[in-house]
Amino acid sequence: MDGVDHLAFERNKAQFDVNDMKIVWAGSRQEFELSDRISRLVASDPVFQKDNRTALDRKELFKNTLRKAAHAWKRVIELRLNEQEASKLRSFVDQPAFTDLHWGMFVPAIKGQGTDEQQEKWLPLANNMQIIGCYAQTELGHGSNVQGLETTATFDPKTDEFIIHSPTLTSSKWWPGGLGKISTHAIVYARLITDGQDHGVHGFIVQLRSLDDHLPLPGITVGDIGMKFGNAAYNSMDNGVLRFDHVRIPRNQMLMRVSQVTREGKFVHSGVPRQLIYGTMVYVRQAIVADASIALSRAVCIATRYSAVRRQFGSQNGGPETQVIDYKTQQARLFPLLASAYAFRFVSEWLKWLYTDVTQKLQANDFSTLPEAHACTAGLKSLTTSATANGIEECRKLCGGHGYLCSSGLPELFAVYVPACTYEGDNTVLLLQVARYLIKTISQLGSGNKPVGTTAYLARVEQLIQYQSDVKRAEDWLKPNVVIEAFEARAARMSVAVAQNLSKFTDPEEGFQELSADLVEAAAAHCQLIVVSKFIEKLQQDIPGNGVKQQLEVLCSVYALFLLHNHLGDFLSTGCITQKQGSLANEQLRSLYSQVRPNAIALVDAFNYTDHLLGSVLGRYDGNVYPKLYEEAWKDPLNDSVVPDGFKEHVQPILRQQLRNARL
Amino acid sequence: MDGVDHLAFERNKAQFDVNDMKIVWAGSRQEFELSDRISRLVASDPVFQKDNRTALDRKELFKNTLRKAAHAWKRVIELRLNEQEASKLRSFVDQPAFTDLHWGMFVPAIKGQGTDEQQEKWLPLANNMQIIGCYAQTELGHGSNVQGLETTATFDPKTDEFIIHSPTLTSSKWWPGGLGKISTHAIVYARLITDGQDHGVHGFIVQLRSLDDHLPLPGITVGDIGMKFGNAAYNSMDNGVLRFDHVRIPRNQMLMRVSQVTREGKFVHSGVPRQLIYGTMVYVRQAIVADASIALSRAVCIATRYSAVRRQFGSQNGGPETQVIDYKTQQARLFPLLASAYAFRFVSEWLKWLYTDVTQKLQANDFSTLPEAHACTAGLKSLTTSATANGIEECRKLCGGHGYLCSSGLPELFAVYVPACTYEGDNTVLLLQVARYLIKTISQLGSGNKPVGTTAYLARVEQLIQYQSDVKRAEDWLKPNVVIEAFEARAARMSVAVAQNLSKFTDPEEGFQELSADLVEAAAAHCQLIVVSKFIEKLQQDIPGNGVKQQLEVLCSVYALFLLHNHLGDFLSTGCITQKQGSLANEQLRSLYSQVRPNAIALVDAFNYTDHLLGSVLGRYDGNVYPKLYEEAWKDPLNDSVVPDGFKEHVQPILRQQLRNARL
Repeated sequence: MDGVDHLAFERNKAQFDVNDMKIVWAGSRQEFELSDRISRLVASDPVFQKDNRTALDRKELFKNTLRKAAHAWKRVIELRLNEQEASKLRSFVDQPAFTDLHWGMFVPAIKGQGTDEQQEKWLPLANNMQIIGCYAQTELGHGSNVQGLETTATFDPKTDEFIIHSPTLTSSKWWPGGLGKISTHAIVYARLITDGQDHGVHGFIVQLRSLDDHLPLPGITVGDIGMKFGNAAYNSMDNGVLRFDHVRIPRNQMLMRVSQVTREGKFVHSGVPRQLIYGTMVYVRQAIVADASIALSRAVCIATRYSAVRRQFGSQNGGPETQVIDYKTQQARLFPLLASAYAFRFVSEWLKWLYTDVTQKLQANDFSTLPEAHACTAGLKSLTTSATANGIEECRKLCGGHGYLCSSGLPELFAVYVPACTYEGDNTVLLLQVARYLIKTISQLGSGNKPVGTTAYLARVEQLIQYQSDVKRAEDWLKPNVVIEAFEARAARMSVAVAQNLSKFTDPEEGFQELSADLVEAAAAHCQLIVVSKFIEKLQQDIPGNGVKQQLEVLCSVYALFLLHNHLGDFLSTGCITQKQGSLANEQLRSLYSQVRPNAIALVDAFNYTDHLLGSVLGRYDGNVYPKLYEEAWKDPLNDSVVPDGFKEHVQPILRQQLRNARL
Repeated sequence: MDGVDHLAFERNKAQFDVNDMKIVWAGSRQEFELSDRISRLVASDPVFQKDNRTALDRKELFKNTLRKAAHAWKRVIELRLNEQEASKLRSFVDQPAFTDLHWGMFVPAIKGQGTDEQQEKWLPLANNMQIIGCYAQTELGHGSNVQGLETTATFDPKTDEFIIHSPTLTSSKWWPGGLGKISTHAIVYARLITDGQDHGVHGFIVQLRSLDDHLPLPGITVGDIGMKFGNAAYNSMDNGVLRFDHVRIPRNQMLMRVSQVTREGKFVHSGVPRQLIYGTMVYVRQAIVADASIALSRAVCIATRYSAVRRQFGSQNGGPETQVIDYKTQQARLFPLLASAYAFRFVSEWLKWLYTDVTQKLQANDFSTLPEAHACTAGLKSLTTSATANGIEECRKLCGGHGYLCSSGLPELFAVYVPACTYEGDNTVLLLQVARYLIKTISQLGSGNKPVGTTAYLARVEQLIQYQSDVKRAEDWLKPNVVIEAFEARAARMSVAVAQNLSKFTDPEEGFQELSADLVEAAAAHCQLIVVSKFIEKLQQDIPGNGVKQQLEVLCSVYALFLLHNHLGDFLSTGCITQKQGSLANEQLRSLYSQVRPNAIALVDAFNYTDHLLGSVLGRYDGNVYPKLYEEAWKDPLNDSVVPDGFKEHVQPILRQQLRNARL
C-alpha cells in the first residue's frame, strides 16, 4: 500500500456516517465488534493468507487447507474463543474445509437426533475433535429424493448390530464434504430394515477410519470424488465417495431420539415429535440466506469500488475519463445488486428471529406455524441463492476483462458459491414445495383456516383480486404501502390463477406436474413479496444515525422497483398495474440511482470487509488497483522462468522449421 | 464402454432421421463430412486427450498445451491439411493456445492492414510459423475505449524509425493471448506521433523476442498476467503483459494499407477506405456468433442426455423413478436452450452470408450497407454470447450436483466461454452501439433514407405503431407472420418510445446517457427480432428429410414464444398484445415442449459431437454415466495415497489431543 486512499474523494461524498451503517449491517454494535475483531485477527495472521491459492495444485491446496484448519483450531484454543467466535473465525478463514461439516452438520445432527445418552457419549469426543465427522446423506443416484436412498442398515438381532451395506453402485455415498480423506466418523443415512421390513431412512453413527493409522476400517471403501468447479474453491474440500460391504455397528449407534430399534428388533417411535427435524431445516436454511447476503455483498463491494476506480471514455478537453460507476447502464446493473445485498441481509435477520420463534413453539408442542415457516425458509433459500449466484457473475462482468483474472477474487467467489443453488434442496424443487403450500393455503381459505405468517395476506384474497394500483405520479412508487399492495396483489393473483387451472384436472398430481412451470413462477412472486415486506418492516424499526434510514429507504425502493421492472409481465398480465404505472415505476427507479450514486462507496464500506476477506485487487479498500494488478501478475508460476517449460521441446523446432523431422 | 447404448430407447423415439438433421446442423453435407472426419481424427489421437487437464497445475497445463499445439501443427503438415481443415483441427483440440491468436488475429491483421509489400514479407514467415505473432491492443487501463490507448509510436526522421514506448503503468499491454510466453512478434496498437502531432491509434509489427534464444529484446518487458477463471480453461493460454522502453522499429513496420508515414515523416492517407476495418469486425463477430452456437449446443447436449439418464422421484409401485427430462420444470428450462442453440446456428449461417455480401460490396466501393451490417453483427454478438454464457450455467444447474464436478465438462465449458461476453466489445457497450444506430435510423425516416437490411421493418413504423395482434387461439401463435409482426411491433415501439424521450433533452448526448438503460432494452428487442426472423427465413428454404422441417418449426416456435414469455412486460407495456394473448402464447409454449420431448436426444445427437469434444461423463453418447463417474473419481491426485499429505502433520495432532503443545 502506498498509504494513499485513492477513494477518499468518493468516501467524502457520503450522506451518512459509515460507522452508523456498519452497525445496521452487522445487526448490532456487539455483532459488529465481534466480526471486526475476528476478521482482523484472521487477516493479520500469515498462516491464513490466501494470495497464492488459485495457483496451487490439488494436493498442495488440500495440504494448505489442513494447515489452516489446524491453525484455526489452535488459535481457538489459545485465545479461548467461545463457540460463536470460533465459528466466525472459521468463516473468515474463507477456505472450505472438512471442519465446516464437522461443526456445521455432524455435531448438530447428534444434538438434534441423538438421545441424551448418545449426546453424552459422542458430543465431548466431537467437541474436542478427538473424532472428526461428516454427514453422509447424498448418494450417487439420489440427491433431492432423500426417501429414495438405497444404502441399507439391516438389524441383526443375533449380534445386536446393524449391518450397513451399499447394495448397488448408485447407492455409493457421494458428495459429503470431509468424507473423502479426513473424517473418522460419519452420520450415515440408510434405509432401516428390521425383520425384512423397510422403515425408511434413518441416521447412524459409523466409524470410517482407524483412529490409529487413519486407514479405512474393513468393509469400507472411501475416497475423494475429484476436481470441482473453480481454481481453488471447493477443491480444498475432500467431498467423498463411500461404499459399505456389510459393515457392522452396535445398535446404539442409530440416532434414536425420534425412532428406536429395541434389543428385540422392534421398531418404535419415541414420544418426540418428528417435526423437530423440520426445525433443523429452518435453521440450516436461514444460515444459507445469511451466507447469500455475505457472498453477494462481497461481490458488490468489489464491483462498486472498481467501478469508481475504472475510467473509460468520455474524456472532455483532455481531462480524466468518466468513472464507469457514472454510466447509467453500470448503475442499472450494479445498484439493484447492492440493494439486494441489503435486502437479503435484513430478511436473514428476520429469519433468525423466525427460527427462535419456531423453536420456542416446538418446545411448547405448538406445531401450528411450522409448515409456514418451513415453506418460507425453503422459498427464501431458493430466491436468495439463485439471485446471489447470478449477482456474483454479473459483478464479475461489471468489472470488464479484469474480472476474469483470479486476482479479482470474483471467479473464486462464484465457483465457491454456486453449489448453494443445489445443496440443501435444489432451488426449483424448493419453489415447487412453496407452491404446494400456497395452493394448499388457498384451497383451505373457505374452510376458515386462517393463513399465517408470510401467507397472511392471502386472507384478503377477495380484496386483492379487486385491487387496482392508484399510482398517479412516479413518486407514488416511493410509498411503502403502494409497493406492498402491488406485490401482494400480483402474488395472490398468480397463485389463484394457477389454483384455478389446477382445479380443471381430475388428477391433482397430474395437474401439478403439467402446470409446474407456472407454479414455480407463482412461488417466486410470493418469495419476492416476503423480501420486500421484510425490508419495509426493517425500516419501520428505530434506525439510529444521521441519514442512514433515508439511504436504506432509497435502497428498499430500488430493490422493489427493480423487481417490478424485471417482472413487469407479471404485474401487467395480472392487471395489478397499468402500462403507464409500470413506466412511472421505471422512471422512479432511474431517478433513485442518482441518489445511490454519491453513497455507493460508503454503502459497501459499511460491510466492513477486510482486504484479506475480499481477496481482490480490484476491490482494494484504498482503490490502488493498477499498480497492484501489475505486481500480482509477476507472481504467477509461469513467470518463474523467462523461457517456459516445454518451449525448447515443442515450439522451438517449429520456429526453426525442424518440425517435419521431429518426433513430438 | 460396455458396448451397450443406454439411450437407445430414447433414440428410437425420434420422429425424424438424425442423419438428415446432422446435415442441416452442419450447413451442408460437405461441412458435415469435414467436421466429422476431423473431429474423429482428433478424438482418436492420444496426444489430444484432455481427461486430466483440470488436475494439472499451471506450468504442467501450459506445457501440455505447447505439446498439443506442436502436435496439431505436425498433423497439419503430415496430412497436408488445407487452411479450413487445419482450423477445424485446432478447434476440435479444444484447448486455448497461442496458435489461436497467431492464426486468428496476427495473420488476418497483416492481411487486412498490411500493404502488398508488407504481406509479401511477413505472411510467408507467419504461415510457416517461422515467427509466431499475437495482437497487442488492450492495455491495463484501456479496453473498450480503443481511442484512449496510451502506448506511443513516435517517428524519428533521423533514423527512419518509430520509437515504441509505454509512457505510464496503465499503458502496459495487458491481456493479449500468446503474448506472455510464446509470441516472437506482435501487432502493437499505439498512438502514432509525427513531429509532435498525435494521429490516433495505428498498428505496428514489433519483434518481442530473439529468434535465437527466445529472450525478450532490449527495452521489452514481457510476462504472463496470471491465473484466470476455471481449472484449466484459459490458463492454457499465456495472456500477457508488455511494456516498452523506447523500442525502435523500422518505419516499414507500421501497417500502412490505410494510412502511411513517409520517409520525411508526413502522415498521409492511402486511397484505401478506412471502412475496410469494419469489414474485419463483421468477420470476427460472425465467427463469435458461430462459436456461441457451438458452445451452447455442447452444454445442451450434455444436459439433455443426462436429463434422460437421471431419474428422481415419482416411482410408482416400486418401478423406476421418473426421468428428470420428463419434468415440466426441467423441460421449461432446457428446451428453450436447445431451441436457442439451433436459432444461433442459423443466424450465424446467415451472418456468414452477410459477411460475403458486405465484402463484395466493399470491393465495389459500395459502403451503403456497412453501418447496418456492423450494427447487426455487434448486436448479435452481444445477444448470443450473453445467452450462451447464461445458458451453459443453466445447463450445469440442470445436471444437479454432479454438474459441479469437472468430470461433467460444464465448469470448464463455462469458464472458457464467459470471456466472450467481454472481448471484442463488451456486450452492454455493443447494445448501446446498436441503439445509436436504431435511433439514427428512426430520426432519418422522414428524410427519405430508407432503412436497410435488418432494420427494413422500421420503414413501416407508422403501421407497426397501430398494430394489434389478432391472435384468438393458442395455435395462432404457431403462424410465423403472427410472431414476426408481434416482435416487429414491440421492437419498433420500444425504439420509437426512447427516441421520443431522447428528443426532450436539449443535449442529445446527455439524453443518450440518461436513457441508456432503456436504449439497451430497445436494442435487445431489435436483436431478438433478428434471430427469430432468420430462424423463420431458414424454414422457408428447402429443408430435406422426413420430419426434419416439422421439428425445426417446433423449435422455432419454442424459441420465439420463450422470448415472448420472458419479455412479456415489453409486449404488454407497448400494447402489442393483450394479457389474454400473452397467456395463450404461454399455453402454446407449454404444449410445444411435449412435441420436443420424444425428439430431444436425437436433436442433440444431430450436433455430432464426439465424447472427446464434450469431455463430459454426464453427456456420454452411450448414457453409461454412473459407472464412469465412479471410475473417474479415483483418478484424482488426492486418491494417490490413502492417507493424504499433511494429515500426519496437521490433523493427527488434533485427534490425539497433542495440539496444545504442537507447533503448527
